[in-house]
Amino acid sequence: MYLGDFKEPVGEWLRGEGSEADLVISSRVRLARNLTDVPFTSVANDRQRAEVADRIQDSLDTLRPGLSLKTQHLEELNAVEKLVLVERHLISRELEMASGPRVVAHDETESFSLMGNEEDHLRLQVVKSGYRLEEAWQQMDQLEKAIDSELQFAFDKKFGYLTACPTNVGTGLRASVMLHLPAMTITGKIEEVNRAATKLHLAIRGLFGEGTEAQGDFFQISNQRTLGQTEEKILQDIAEVLPKILSYERTLRGKLFEQRKEWIEDRIGRAFGTLSHARIIQSKEALDHLSLVRLGVSMGILQDLTMDQVNRMFLFSQPGHLQAIDGQELSALERDLKRAELLRKILAE
Amino acid sequence: MYLGDFKEPVGEWLRGEGSEADLVISSRVRLARNLTDVPFTSVANDRQRAEVADRIQDSLDTLRPGLSLKTQHLEELNAVEKLVLVERHLISRELEMASGPRVVAHDETESFSLMGNEEDHLRLQVVKSGYRLEEAWQQMDQLEKAIDSELQFAFDKKFGYLTACPTNVGTGLRASVMLHLPAMTITGKIEEVNRAATKLHLAIRGLFGEGTEAQGDFFQISNQRTLGQTEEKILQDIAEVLPKILSYERTLRGKLFEQRKEWIEDRIGRAFGTLSHARIIQSKEALDHLSLVRLGVSMGILQDLTMDQVNRMFLFSQPGHLQAIDGQELSALERDLKRAELLRKILAE
Repeated sequence: MYLGDFKEPVGEWLRGEGSEADLVISSRVRLARNLTDVPFTSVANDRQRAEVADRIQDSLDTLRPGLSLKTQHLEELNAVEKLVLVERHLISRELEMASGPRVVAHDETESFSLMGNEEDHLRLQVVKSGYRLEEAWQQMDQLEKAIDSELQFAFDKKFGYLTACPTNVGTGLRASVMLHLPAMTITGKIEEVNRAATKLHLAIRGLFGEGTEAQGDFFQISNQRTLGQTEEKILQDIAEVLPKILSYERTLRGKLFEQRKEWIEDRIGRAFGTLSHARIIQSKEALDHLSLVRLGVSMGILQDLTMDQVNRMFLFSQPGHLQAIDGQELSALERDLKRAELLRKILAE
Repeated sequence: MYLGDFKEPVGEWLRGEGSEADLVISSRVRLARNLTDVPFTSVANDRQRAEVADRIQDSLDTLRPGLSLKTQHLEELNAVEKLVLVERHLISRELEMASGPRVVAHDETESFSLMGNEEDHLRLQVVKSGYRLEEAWQQMDQLEKAIDSELQFAFDKKFGYLTACPTNVGTGLRASVMLHLPAMTITGKIEEVNRAATKLHLAIRGLFGEGTEAQGDFFQISNQRTLGQTEEKILQDIAEVLPKILSYERTLRGKLFEQRKEWIEDRIGRAFGTLSHARIIQSKEALDHLSLVRLGVSMGILQDLTMDQVNRMFLFSQPGHLQAIDGQELSALERDLKRAELLRKILAE
């Protein structure tokens, strides 16, 4: 599969462009859809799942060359290739771990992707770097309509789109933004945001969505309800709370650099120094340092470093990518050695 | 007082030259002597102490211009100036903390120095970088004879030179070498050396001699007995055990770099990275990192760094030197900031 080179810019979700890109890594919308005449994935047999995969493929073919999607069958991929797709946020951990016929398709920029035979027959995803939820939604709306004309989706006049899990019934829409909130973590204010978000029926999760813990000060905020909500209302809920979160983080950053300047510069400097010179480094430690280094770049403390370098370190230092670059499965220690080597290379550019 | 510049090479004890200089920082001999007709320092009054200081000064004047010693009266120095002298190993902590008339004199290279009114009336010291104990002793022997012709030293036919503390009676000679033994500390073998040395009546102490703990893998080995020993026997005791210690350290280093190469390179790299990028750093932490960086330079791991840079970081990052460079007393936090700044400057050369 095409992996990309760690010397080249990365896919859409880590591109580092768009509004508020220093705090908002990326914006994402996904739709859950199911075919009318096939049982839900969890109860479908392999023949039925294969049929779903085929019909998705057929519908995509009619969309080409407009979209130019690349389709892959997960049962044909090895463990490393699947892990790379997870790390690029193109498939979920669930799709990675499942068995039987299942597909992923994505365009070259990795902005648009879909999963076939995940929890639902079809999961569509549009990702835009920075805070561009509305733009992502507009694009998704068009794509969904185009695909809808080819496939027949299960829809109920009362409930809306039918999904395997009741939390997705209705619009089937989940909108989320991936945020980098180091000042909130450092000052211990992230819990406040967590409580406020819960009240507004928004969920705060980790880097890889549902069931994952926040790592390295990265948080994903998404809507929890879809039933009884319009798409506009869902986007609006996030659009209302997000500026407050961003403004709070900016205020806290300002205070940190005003009142504890040397202390925060020390932490950032040490993180940079360790990433630049370690020879063995674990994933969790690297991510913690990368978070501080990202803060340093956006605050102008690390002037010789670019956000593109940070993003590439972030992406390519993950276990799957390290093994893909090396062309073989690696032990944990081997990965820690390769990770340190890669980080040093990118930082030495 | 003359402090030197942190961009210039440092005095004799950290010059980094001489035999086995990667493991032996410096060699030192000192003689304890007392005048015949004045009570020991501890029971002398200020008038008597002033007389001792005067007579030492007079005797030095007759040695000039051959030696060109600079004399300073400690009661005229401020706290920072005294601390600098301690950190340069020109005076003891005892002389720094004492009161009343007391002097220090040293030549420009800081190879020869003397203290007046320490525990004994006169303490003479010769320091040579690297393992050059014999050379240091030869030089000391000449100096002592020259001074002896001017001053009358308390000598007993049976006991030898009389000193304030019985452990110094006899030759009054203490010979010591300052060693850098990081592989022994890392592998936990330093205790073996400690036990072996004790059996041979040698003492292992820290950077600043008696009563100080080893720091940053630096150890001082010296004779414990002077009574009933000839000067030759004292030097011979050290000369016999030292090659074994050095060879053991070299073997351990070899094994480390053979069997745990990545691990030790990681530790050295991280130490270098932290020294290069920290903004706040305490004395103890800096010394630990400097020890690893010194190991990295001598093993060829840190090829862009010189031992001279390491030695200057070592000397000038001490609290007294930092305050002297800044021209004022500094709080602990201010020193930690200045220390980090100085380390970054020297490493960026």
